[in-house]
Amino acid sequence: MALDYFEPLPSTIPQMADNRVTPEKIDLGKALFFDPRLSASGVFSCYSCHNLTTGGDDNMETSVGHGWQKGPRNSPTVFNAVLNIAQFWDGRAEDLKAQAKGPVQAGVEMANTPDNVVATLNSMQAYKDWFADAFPGEAEPVSFDNMARAIEAFEATLITPAPFDAFLNGDDMALTDVQKEGLQLFVDKGCATCHNGVNLGGNGYYPFGLVEKPGADILPEGDKGRFTVTETAMDEYVFRAAPLRNIAVTAPYFHSGKVWDLKVAVQVMGVAQLGEEVSDEEAVKIVAFLESLTGEVPEVTLPTLPAETANTPRPTAEVVPN
Amino acid sequence: MALDYFEPLPSTIPQMADNRVTPEKIDLGKALFFDPRLSASGVFSCYSCHNLTTGGDDNMETSVGHGWQKGPRNSPTVFNAVLNIAQFWDGRAEDLKAQAKGPVQAGVEMANTPDNVVATLNSMQAYKDWFADAFPGEAEPVSFDNMARAIEAFEATLITPAPFDAFLNGDDMALTDVQKEGLQLFVDKGCATCHNGVNLGGNGYYPFGLVEKPGADILPEGDKGRFTVTETAMDEYVFRAAPLRNIAVTAPYFHSGKVWDLKVAVQVMGVAQLGEEVSDEEAVKIVAFLESLTGEVPEVTLPTLPAETANTPRPTAEVVPN
Repeated sequence: MALDYFEPLPSTIPQMADNRVTPEKIDLGKALFFDPRLSASGVFSCYSCHNLTTGGDDNMETSVGHGWQKGPRNSPTVFNAVLNIAQFWDGRAEDLKAQAKGPVQAGVEMANTPDNVVATLNSMQAYKDWFADAFPGEAEPVSFDNMARAIEAFEATLITPAPFDAFLNGDDMALTDVQKEGLQLFVDKGCATCHNGVNLGGNGYYPFGLVEKPGADILPEGDKGRFTVTETAMDEYVFRAAPLRNIAVTAPYFHSGKVWDLKVAVQVMGVAQLGEEVSDEEAVKIVAFLESLTGEVPEVTLPTLPAETANTPRPTAEVVPN
Repeated sequence: MALDYFEPLPSTIPQMADNRVTPEKIDLGKALFFDPRLSASGVFSCYSCHNLTTGGDDNMETSVGHGWQKGPRNSPTVFNAVLNIAQFWDGRAEDLKAQAKGPVQAGVEMANTPDNVVATLNSMQAYKDWFADAFPGEAEPVSFDNMARAIEAFEATLITPAPFDAFLNGDDMALTDVQKEGLQLFVDKGCATCHNGVNLGGNGYYPFGLVEKPGADILPEGDKGRFTVTETAMDEYVFRAAPLRNIAVTAPYFHSGKVWDLKVAVQVMGVAQLGEEVSDEEAVKIVAFLESLTGEVPEVTLPTLPAETANTPRPTAEVVPN
């Protein structure tokens, strides 16, 4: 039954037709992912908001960025993100390499520019060598696009096999009885209508508040979701269904990050999307099932990054007004 | 000759009489070192300013902390710091466990309180278990003091053997000819008077500007160094001699972080401390020698931290005025 709705993680690193994942690209991407010099201030790296020690996100309602500004939406986990059909809460980036360019340039996040990033990377010989190795035969391997490609390749390795995968792969003992009851409820109540596939979500767009709009604390009026991307009235307050892998370790919830308790989040979803009161007892079982989606984090050894040179642009904490 | 002034790194993790380093303490300390929830905002961990990918420091003049405030002094590398006689630029912490309590509480850094840290740690069962394992037999293993002890234990493992150690251990080929000339100049000119011992510094206090005070850009008048600790007139503008291991990868230099070029830093030191103009040619050789102090960073695998619970204090980006 479960395989009608869900799919286990692949056993190898997902490959992308337009960005073949190679060991050289992974290594370069790992260095870039951890390098705070991709931000104007030198304070933030990809890792800052997609912290691999805390579920691949940052445990905040919305992230703190350049100049102590707060970002507009909750930072999603980078784990298994490669398997989403598109990136960001509104799906505005078609893949991780498109996504990677966003925060680097966002004024409230890393506040950098492509030119400054390329100048930074070109100032360090090791980066020039690594880009040449990762993008062999290219005339100008060090580029903002290739930075994004390498980061995507590294992120493609961040796959977290969970007990639920073992269950889908045939191990009936991988879930507890309560978790199995939660799974049954998850399907019977209709959660799996949107939260399905390999990431139990991340693969479709739905109005938040399909049946009943949650309060403005959870669904702030000013953020119209995918409407901003498509400018189509029917996309008002539409968001990508949240992928649910590692959901139990990535509070707070929703694009607004306003709900910290997973049980409450389940109950909010019941009313908002299904018009159904999920009882405490049911919600506890569904949460138990969701806990079976907490996966094993791949071992990540910290890279050693090249040192700045005289040509490296200096960090600036200055906040430039828009 | 070199062994008259310098000492190679120990081949095992340095032990402290009052804080025995055990595997359990190291593992706990690593988790704490990487945990941004030790800061009030959830933005900063020890790793933020002592970044293990970039020389154990943060490549900024002075660090950016809570509320985007700038710290008063350049962040020193955590690598080999266990071997300094005291911590901070003014030596105000007698060891790393005393040091570790500082930034966690500093309003311009992590802006947290011991009570809030302990509440945070006690809210997660895994931390309670890890503290019990690391501090067996203690009635209340989860404490701010034990947090600091565990962090010290992890930091004691961050030792970076360098070509200069191989040289001191008898490998004449470990330094190039230019590096050997630089070493000779380093000793002959008197640099080794203050920069000696196992960390080539970090073991004594000296006035910055012993012979001639550098300009206020490099030595800001408002920061009187060790005077603030001892309140003794002779300690005005006195600082701990900077330990020089990994100096080539930890720009910018001095407590003010105002000099980015190591060659310039060497020349500033020549005039300020020795009353001697170091020529470009000499400075290049000394820098070549200093590059032999860039060590191999130990392999650090990221920990997986426990998830917050309903009892975990929530992060706050709010800046509380003093």
